[in-house]
Amino acid sequence: MSSNFGDKLKISIFGQSHSQAIGVVIDGLPAGVEIDMDKVYKFMARRAPGQNKYSTQRKEKDVPQILSGLFEGKTCGAPLCAIIENTDTRSQDYKNIKDVPRPSHADFTAFIKHGGANDFRGGGHFSGRLTAPLCFAGAVCMQILERSNITIGAHILQISDISDFCLDPVFVSASELEEIKEKDFPVINDPFGEDMQARILEAKNDGDSVGGVIECCVVGLPVGIGNPMFDGIENKISSAIFAIPAVKGIEFGNGFDACSIFGSQNNDEFYVDNESVKTKTNNSGGILGGISNGMPLLFNVGIKPTPTISKEQNSINLFTKESEKLKVHGRHDPCIVPRAVACVEAATAIALLDLML
Amino acid sequence: MSSNFGDKLKISIFGQSHSQAIGVVIDGLPAGVEIDMDKVYKFMARRAPGQNKYSTQRKEKDVPQILSGLFEGKTCGAPLCAIIENTDTRSQDYKNIKDVPRPSHADFTAFIKHGGANDFRGGGHFSGRLTAPLCFAGAVCMQILERSNITIGAHILQISDISDFCLDPVFVSASELEEIKEKDFPVINDPFGEDMQARILEAKNDGDSVGGVIECCVVGLPVGIGNPMFDGIENKISSAIFAIPAVKGIEFGNGFDACSIFGSQNNDEFYVDNESVKTKTNNSGGILGGISNGMPLLFNVGIKPTPTISKEQNSINLFTKESEKLKVHGRHDPCIVPRAVACVEAATAIALLDLML
Amino acid sequence: MSSNFGDKLKISIFGQSHSQAIGVVIDGLPAGVEIDMDKVYKFMARRAPGQNKYSTQRKEKDVPQILSGLFEGKTCGAPLCAIIENTDTRSQDYKNIKDVPRPSHADFTAFIKHGGANDFRGGGHFSGRLTAPLCFAGAVCMQILERSNITIGAHILQISDISDFCLDPVFVSASELEEIKEKDFPVINDPFGEDMQARILEAKNDGDSVGGVIECCVVGLPVGIGNPMFDGIENKISSAIFAIPAVKGIEFGNGFDACSIFGSQNNDEFYVDNESVKTKTNNSGGILGGISNGMPLLFNVGIKPTPTISKEQNSINLFTKESEKLKVHGRHDPCIVPRAVACVEAATAIALLDLML
Amino acid sequence: MSSNFGDKLKISIFGQSHSQAIGVVIDGLPAGVEIDMDKVYKFMARRAPGQNKYSTQRKEKDVPQILSGLFEGKTCGAPLCAIIENTDTRSQDYKNIKDVPRPSHADFTAFIKHGGANDFRGGGHFSGRLTAPLCFAGAVCMQILERSNITIGAHILQISDISDFCLDPVFVSASELEEIKEKDFPVINDPFGEDMQARILEAKNDGDSVGGVIECCVVGLPVGIGNPMFDGIENKISSAIFAIPAVKGIEFGNGFDACSIFGSQNNDEFYVDNESVKTKTNNSGGILGGISNGMPLLFNVGIKPTPTISKEQNSINLFTKESEKLKVHGRHDPCIVPRAVACVEAATAIALLDLML
Repeated sequence: MSSNFGDKLKISIFGQSHSQAIGVVIDGLPAGVEIDMDKVYKFMARRAPGQNKYSTQRKEKDVPQILSGLFEGKTCGAPLCAIIENTDTRSQDYKNIKDVPRPSHADFTAFIKHGGANDFRGGGHFSGRLTAPLCFAGAVCMQILERSNITIGAHILQISDISDFCLDPVFVSASELEEIKEKDFPVINDPFGEDMQARILEAKNDGDSVGGVIECCVVGLPVGIGNPMFDGIENKISSAIFAIPAVKGIEFGNGFDACSIFGSQNNDEFYVDNESVKTKTNNSGGILGGISNGMPLLFNVGIKPTPTISKEQNSINLFTKESEKLKVHGRHDPCIVPRAVACVEAATAIALLDLML
Repeated sequence: MSSNFGDKLKISIFGQSHSQAIGVVIDGLPAGVEIDMDKVYKFMARRAPGQNKYSTQRKEKDVPQILSGLFEGKTCGAPLCAIIENTDTRSQDYKNIKDVPRPSHADFTAFIKHGGANDFRGGGHFSGRLTAPLCFAGAVCMQILERSNITIGAHILQISDISDFCLDPVFVSASELEEIKEKDFPVINDPFGEDMQARILEAKNDGDSVGGVIECCVVGLPVGIGNPMFDGIENKISSAIFAIPAVKGIEFGNGFDACSIFGSQNNDEFYVDNESVKTKTNNSGGILGGISNGMPLLFNVGIKPTPTISKEQNSINLFTKESEKLKVHGRHDPCIVPRAVACVEAATAIALLDLML
Repeated sequence: MSSNFGDKLKISIFGQSHSQAIGVVIDGLPAGVEIDMDKVYKFMARRAPGQNKYSTQRKEKDVPQILSGLFEGKTCGAPLCAIIENTDTRSQDYKNIKDVPRPSHADFTAFIKHGGANDFRGGGHFSGRLTAPLCFAGAVCMQILERSNITIGAHILQISDISDFCLDPVFVSASELEEIKEKDFPVINDPFGEDMQARILEAKNDGDSVGGVIECCVVGLPVGIGNPMFDGIENKISSAIFAIPAVKGIEFGNGFDACSIFGSQNNDEFYVDNESVKTKTNNSGGILGGISNGMPLLFNVGIKPTPTISKEQNSINLFTKESEKLKVHGRHDPCIVPRAVACVEAATAIALLDLML
Repeated sequence: MSSNFGDKLKISIFGQSHSQAIGVVIDGLPAGVEIDMDKVYKFMARRAPGQNKYSTQRKEKDVPQILSGLFEGKTCGAPLCAIIENTDTRSQDYKNIKDVPRPSHADFTAFIKHGGANDFRGGGHFSGRLTAPLCFAGAVCMQILERSNITIGAHILQISDISDFCLDPVFVSASELEEIKEKDFPVINDPFGEDMQARILEAKNDGDSVGGVIECCVVGLPVGIGNPMFDGIENKISSAIFAIPAVKGIEFGNGFDACSIFGSQNNDEFYVDNESVKTKTNNSGGILGGISNGMPLLFNVGIKPTPTISKEQNSINLFTKESEKLKVHGRHDPCIVPRAVACVEAATAIALLDLML
């Protein structure tokens, strides 16, 4: 049941890196909502590979085909299914990983879990490619959220040890988020972004990889979304975000920084502004007791360096149990953080819509 | 559906801080397993309040009564229900929070979400007291996991800005975990623990509070537990952990530290040790692609300072929408981290057993 | 997960016939709804044993205690837990069924499923007694439905081979349903009811038992409740109704009678009455494509004769695998149909509220 | 969430009668199981239209394409997705039903539920065509069940008022079930089958339709499958079976016949045969307390006459609210019972595999 998400909205993602197609079924969407497919494509393009010098050169049109669920351009109450064909697959690139698992990749655990029956080509169902249908689903959910004036925007906060500015947790606006999303390299302060890109290229040239941190923000969320205990905003968002490969951690509001300050410093005092209750600071990241408090929702997602690198590594042969040296020659990103920005937004959109329906 | 957890195991937690009782129903436990109630009590005592100078003085026997599910000391296939009566409730302590929500607590969001119908006394269903039934459920699940030689142990890694040593991610052992659990103040290096306790007392004397970080470890987990995408170990554990009030973040393995190093540094190379596949380092924290790889499972949980403090704070009156000063006089912990250690273990036990059944 | 029901509403039933208590947790109720406990007790009394000459003489006060979820008489957004203590348990009555399973009862399958660890006393978790918390949950749900002018009423349609009149599928009214519910022996035509009662007594005197059919009706359900495929009204109601022990079948509208007539006879033609769309006949029982069509919802539930009889029967010894004669001396109903009427209404209320939230 | 089924196995069905494709995602299948696609096609052919004179002349190849989940002919642990393209769609046939709903069809309720946004062409997501992916999923599940020597077989028990013999509830065998499945018109006694076919043709010639009853049997099911209360075999199977359009009722074992006999007649006495516990009769249909008892599992499904008939009927115009006469000219089956036989088997296979995983 691993590839299903949601309670009121049901997302079912399928496909392997080299199967005939990958795709997603979304059940539970409200009927009668017009879906702007150009906007969907534009959103998905932010995740798509092969777009610039620091991402994998695998080029796929990755245009989702709608098989069901839309009628005359609108959701019709039936499950929405979209597929993306796998056309540019070079299976031979991955032949050696059949026997020799890549360090810090799912090759080994998939092999054990499925008794050797797993589709190892390109990482199979564990491939980052499966985030394409996630992004499709997220793009659809986001259009529904936008009708309620909810805006989701993420940006690159850190690449390797180079950091960008944070969003202002109190005063961040929808237009600011939209502006950052338009950038090719979505950071707040572009000079930092240039340093980050240089670092990625450097890693690429070394046959190495780097990771980073993504900051995600939601503005316009009404008060009262989410539930106590196991179904709060943090539980729901984190269980969606960890579906993105390479995510190592998540923190809400000021996150781990809250651990080292005093309660009197960390607490967000209430005040009333124009009839509406606000907080002077927003260390809580817009969430109290699992429930939105009307302030911007904020969280950071930590992403590890791409495990697939071309530098030589030590591994083992799964069948002979001998040591083996591994050099991976397939196309791979030296840093997936830039492409993961859209994935984080997509997972957030799905999680929030599920809580709001 | 907020207080339900699990797919194969179904945990349903109920109660408010000042309702007649709180409790939990656990459905789906294997039948015929002997439950050592003394061990359950001992586990729950680690979370219980009023045990020492730095925790709340609310004293409750908190002895769970078993209403169903055990027959002749063993699970019998029927849902296991345990309740804990609320006896030492001093509702008047919380009277002022009816109108004036505590900053960074759920008072405000609960009020809005439930249209003012929420049981505000002592935080109602949002109270940290609801972690008692969570610990009961966790203690039962842990006994089942222990039969498969799986050991879960957590310790205080940081209080305020004072840090303890980390566990060795590769060589940590079950006995080491058990030893730390026996301590009154569960840290690795006791002198650090003394500093931490001093800091907590200091905060208490100031009417303030501090937070911290808990490191949790699982040894003995077989390879292959967990699933890809939405049902991996990280998704499952994080959606259980965020049920504990005051949790701000979670990171697996080296977590956010992975973001700033190179792939070649972060990747855990495989080797074979006595027929079994291991990794030389364990930055992955025992998880690859959402699935356990046989190495120790490791993660950190960040906990904010207790929001309920006795220092005067600015808040508002929910009914008049006027500014109000708030000074909370109820009993409350200046630091919930020590008591949260058992909660983290409990949530982990529930999450893992659900994945393993 | 066997004792959990619902998607938006989560019902978790626990307890065994002879455990300390039985009960139910209801999570997901809307907050702020006043619950009339007298009405709840009155509803539960319709299911309670020991009320007249043809039901089991087990007398229990069966007054549910509310442990949580109500605050000042209203739902407060927290899970509602109610328990009923098991006081009048005569375990020795059932001692012989430990070894010798009652024919057509769950003793045998429970023993095998749980490897002999099942609580066999009084049928354990399989006891009809577990319908008491079901009725509690149903009574609460019904009060919420009634606020939307939805009325659920069931009556005894058949006992043994004696049949009552059916409700008029088109013109049945809420007041008619309420009137039947007030009767001690809920039939439409009382003389038939007297014959039925005579038949039950006859069976009782013979140490035997009889079954029957219950017709259930819901009026006031708006158009559009329910979903296609797996989440239609029939799926949802049937999966709740089969939780009642001894149910053998369910049919909606004219049910199996539809199988032998022509489409032109079976189809319910549409017409417009006062702006609202109605059907001239109601063979569909108010459901089209899993979704309510605004006509009365109607279905029949077939209930087998109580399997526990005092007549001697052939069985086997589970341990020696020898043949054994069995005579059960415990208190048991010669016919559970009268008490099951409230259970059918309760299951229906739960199923419909889950679809409507 | 209407088109999702299962707890351990997750089935997600999508598509409308006239969308680009219909299909299904199956998540949770065990890995490494070889799927015999010819057997799948053969199974699906039993449901396919256009095969003989008494079924709809809509001819579609209906060959499912596998998009994911199989690797080298075996399940690989990733979700299995299969789609069937909609090629032979004659949308103009259904144009009049846009405004004028067919009596006893979902046209009206779908229109109301989805606020007029539903895809009305050919019944949209409510079309019987959606049973094709159900049959695909069932065929796959059945192959997995067959590896445990579980055989599922259904046959036509009744068409209109013409009945066939029942299976022997005690002595029915797998080979007998297989033999019936091979027949073009699956009945036990062929002369009855000829009468049934004549009746169907008669109805067809009159522009009318007939219904019937399907008896389904499972042999080889081990003791102990299923759970008490809400997750028993009856709950699970009925919630799958009611996904098949036109199903009106379901009864297990002797079903409604049990209601009119005495307990002493209805109870199935136990005996031991070759170390294994059996019952002399099988009125219980192989289920006690929701759990399989090792005897053949038996149930009947009642199916109404196809609501789409070409005879003139009274309906209304959804937009003008005027009365309208309706004559449907599309291709439609005068009786769907023969094609529904495979659907009943498929739903049963899915329900049982979900309980067994």
